[in-house]
Amino acid sequence: MKTLPVHLDNPLRKGLIEDRTGDACAVVIFGASGDLTRRKLVPALYNLAVSRFLPSGFAIVGVARREKSDDSFRAEMKEAVSAFSRRQPIDPGVWSDFERGIGYVAGTFESPETYEKLRQHLDRIDAERGTRKSRLFYLAVSPNDFGVIMQRLNAAGLVSPAVTTPGGPFARVIIEKPFGQDLASARALNMAVAETFQEKDVFRIDHYLGKETVQNLLVFRFANSLFEPLWNREHIDHVQITVAEEIGVEGRGKFYEQVGVTRDIVQNHLMQLLCLTAMEPPISLHADAVRDEKVKVLRSLRPMEPHSVQQNVIRGQYARGYVKGEEALGYRDEPNVENDSRVETFVAMRVFVDNWRWGGVPFFVRAGKRLARRVTEIAIQFKQVPHGLFHSPDGGIAPNVLSMRIQPDESIALRFTTKEPGQHTILRNMAMDFHYGAAFGSNTPEAYERLLLDAMRGDATLFTRHDEVEEQWAFVDQVFDAWRKEASIPPPFYPAGSWGPEQADDLIAHSGRRWRKP
Amino acid sequence: MKTLPVHLDNPLRKGLIEDRTGDACAVVIFGASGDLTRRKLVPALYNLAVSRFLPSGFAIVGVARREKSDDSFRAEMKEAVSAFSRRQPIDPGVWSDFERGIGYVAGTFESPETYEKLRQHLDRIDAERGTRKSRLFYLAVSPNDFGVIMQRLNAAGLVSPAVTTPGGPFARVIIEKPFGQDLASARALNMAVAETFQEKDVFRIDHYLGKETVQNLLVFRFANSLFEPLWNREHIDHVQITVAEEIGVEGRGKFYEQVGVTRDIVQNHLMQLLCLTAMEPPISLHADAVRDEKVKVLRSLRPMEPHSVQQNVIRGQYARGYVKGEEALGYRDEPNVENDSRVETFVAMRVFVDNWRWGGVPFFVRAGKRLARRVTEIAIQFKQVPHGLFHSPDGGIAPNVLSMRIQPDESIALRFTTKEPGQHTILRNMAMDFHYGAAFGSNTPEAYERLLLDAMRGDATLFTRHDEVEEQWAFVDQVFDAWRKEASIPPPFYPAGSWGPEQADDLIAHSGRRWRKP
Repeated sequence: MKTLPVHLDNPLRKGLIEDRTGDACAVVIFGASGDLTRRKLVPALYNLAVSRFLPSGFAIVGVARREKSDDSFRAEMKEAVSAFSRRQPIDPGVWSDFERGIGYVAGTFESPETYEKLRQHLDRIDAERGTRKSRLFYLAVSPNDFGVIMQRLNAAGLVSPAVTTPGGPFARVIIEKPFGQDLASARALNMAVAETFQEKDVFRIDHYLGKETVQNLLVFRFANSLFEPLWNREHIDHVQITVAEEIGVEGRGKFYEQVGVTRDIVQNHLMQLLCLTAMEPPISLHADAVRDEKVKVLRSLRPMEPHSVQQNVIRGQYARGYVKGEEALGYRDEPNVENDSRVETFVAMRVFVDNWRWGGVPFFVRAGKRLARRVTEIAIQFKQVPHGLFHSPDGGIAPNVLSMRIQPDESIALRFTTKEPGQHTILRNMAMDFHYGAAFGSNTPEAYERLLLDAMRGDATLFTRHDEVEEQWAFVDQVFDAWRKEASIPPPFYPAGSWGPEQADDLIAHSGRRWRKP
Repeated sequence: MKTLPVHLDNPLRKGLIEDRTGDACAVVIFGASGDLTRRKLVPALYNLAVSRFLPSGFAIVGVARREKSDDSFRAEMKEAVSAFSRRQPIDPGVWSDFERGIGYVAGTFESPETYEKLRQHLDRIDAERGTRKSRLFYLAVSPNDFGVIMQRLNAAGLVSPAVTTPGGPFARVIIEKPFGQDLASARALNMAVAETFQEKDVFRIDHYLGKETVQNLLVFRFANSLFEPLWNREHIDHVQITVAEEIGVEGRGKFYEQVGVTRDIVQNHLMQLLCLTAMEPPISLHADAVRDEKVKVLRSLRPMEPHSVQQNVIRGQYARGYVKGEEALGYRDEPNVENDSRVETFVAMRVFVDNWRWGGVPFFVRAGKRLARRVTEIAIQFKQVPHGLFHSPDGGIAPNVLSMRIQPDESIALRFTTKEPGQHTILRNMAMDFHYGAAFGSNTPEAYERLLLDAMRGDATLFTRHDEVEEQWAFVDQVFDAWRKEASIPPPFYPAGSWGPEQADDLIAHSGRRWRKP
């Protein structure tokens, strides 16, 4: 998040900031025939064009194996934008200019010839489209292909100059997840990346960081004087972070068998939410200042020895059940899933951030598929009042909770206790809340729009740094190590449509707390 | 506010609490032919009957000069209830029982004969209506009559027994404002009251304390762990309390010429709001525990020497102007107002609570007639963030404000800074809020219902204690002393429909702050 002028109540000023578009460049998408390109990347770039956030010197180059003309790739992309852009119908004026910048290069990722064709293509569009020798490579490919693509780009001289001058040509790379499948592979990948790109030019995407509420967490914490004084062990009883999906593996059984929820969600998205919740105020909003603080949180996580994994981590796998009234298969019955699979589709953890601010405050985090509701939220549960003036024989006052909903319905709510109107002092829990949609209208940009624009501008704040990725893996690797030792024990089952296995309830009930049912 | 069972989310339990009705008694209203009886007291008692909060042993005795039969008084009261009760239409079953308990005694307040008739009447209804020798006297009369009524009640033996036993007969008195017109007269009045009643049986009404949001201020502060840690000089920049009326003196010019806004509003209502905002957490919610803390606030108020009145107090008087588009007279043109009157219809003060919690935090308070809007609110303005991460060249982030609206539209709102959805970090001030009407429906009991019921139950928490009244007068008397020395200088004028004289703006602008425009 870059330090930008703040415009309070002055919408007139908003259009006038000059440094808001991306830097001139060609966006080169490896994996141009994939779903991500079609559903997310090109629609997001088109949306940026509609909002006038694209630089005037701009082009897209799709790279994939299949032979295809520029025109047929353009036609495909037009269809993709019609289907997936939030800006409908397509604006013919914007589209016709945008489309002229779309090109295609066919070839395998291994073949040097592909890169020679790419170089020629880029030279041509530098002249035609004003892309100024700057490139933003997007690796929308399987992680297995990351290494070869970077090696070939380097060999073909497409990443020079090694040292960029401010405002001069650049070569940046955006890397999609998964970034490795454990610490060792992530390290190897980081080393491969570092042979071709400088760290400042590497943009490892975690699309959660592009979500409005996630970015807003920093604003909420650090642009308000109200919350930060309470944001510590003195006032907070515990934190709950939930990333729940209703859907199952949806035909991606083969992929999921390799991954499980811990690699798919916890290592990246959930750890990022934890970091943003727990981090110290950064000295500035520059990319490294923010990421330094996130890395400090990761380094403060209490290590998970094998015996503490047993005590603090619960895994689960969904069995047959009902989700919103409809019958749902168990995980093992899904296509391309082993019928004795031990892959976890749910995980709940009690995590401690062992530092001065958070000493002793448990963070209960959970993620899973086929849960009762699709919801991602961070909930800060404050302590009980120190003196029960309004003490009740039958239960007491529910503590204050600040909940930040990341999806769906981005919102912030504060649960507090108030007096019910009437002749006696009867207390009620009510909520003050704030809904993004209601406040700002629903045309919120998608995560990829923000992230692509930031990468074009060279702002890596919302991207994951190499050490951050490694620390995230180092933490979850401890869990995998413990699980490997009990590989013969299947994870407990939970019915599809529930909130996970009973053991997860026990994990939190043990300390007299309970999971929210958001 | 008595410690009562708290029923969270259990409305079924609500009807089952046994100690919620008043204690059996006769309510004796002196000034039974006045407006207060007709508009507020009898409608409030009827509303309590509808809600089944009245004790089964209950009667009303009106006392006034005019000769009148029980029946004609009942007919008048039926008309009053039809016109002014919030429970419409009248429930014939409730009314017929309620009406049988209404009686009338004619006589002057001076004549011992009146009290002899009253005694006979009370003896009769003790037998007929089960009022168990308990009396709640309501002095809905001019303050000039307080003394003689209490003296005669005492002489007639209507206030025995002097020492009440728990559950036994009682004699309590409710006294309407104004309770004196300065410290000396309030003291004299307290002494006269003490000759007849024990302090625990004296209920000095400040109807603001019967308002839901005012009571809720205690719940809000002390049933939530979230706010109290912030409620001090470390986190609060300043506090604003506003009691603004749109109306002028409305034909009560003669009364207002005696009083002015400082006696009418500041000495009682506004000081109460200040006390509830600034007080320490009481050790319990018993009447004296709460009132002890309020008195401590009053004793902590920084003394107003004559020179500090000049610096810290601004008075004003409304001149001709427009209120909501309609032309309004100036105060001096109102009927029964001197055409060179110096009575203040507006006052603004900067007040300091010199104690550990509030050292150096200014409380800006203001009250007035013919202002731009009818609104009573308390606004807590928090400090700026200590480090401007989101620093802006053109103005910075507005600080957090917690505002409690007492009337109209009882509500609580928290202004905070959030990120506007979009590709850049543009900050916006938004509010989380909570409206009583929307949350609980609009059929909120009126202040007099709560206060009459509390007096019937012997709970004085929401009434003003003798020392509290005296401290309030002691504070405003300092202001009167200073004004007396400059009696020849008229207060500055402000146009009807404005927010008061310019000098009030200067008072707060001096320290770089500004008044809210609620």
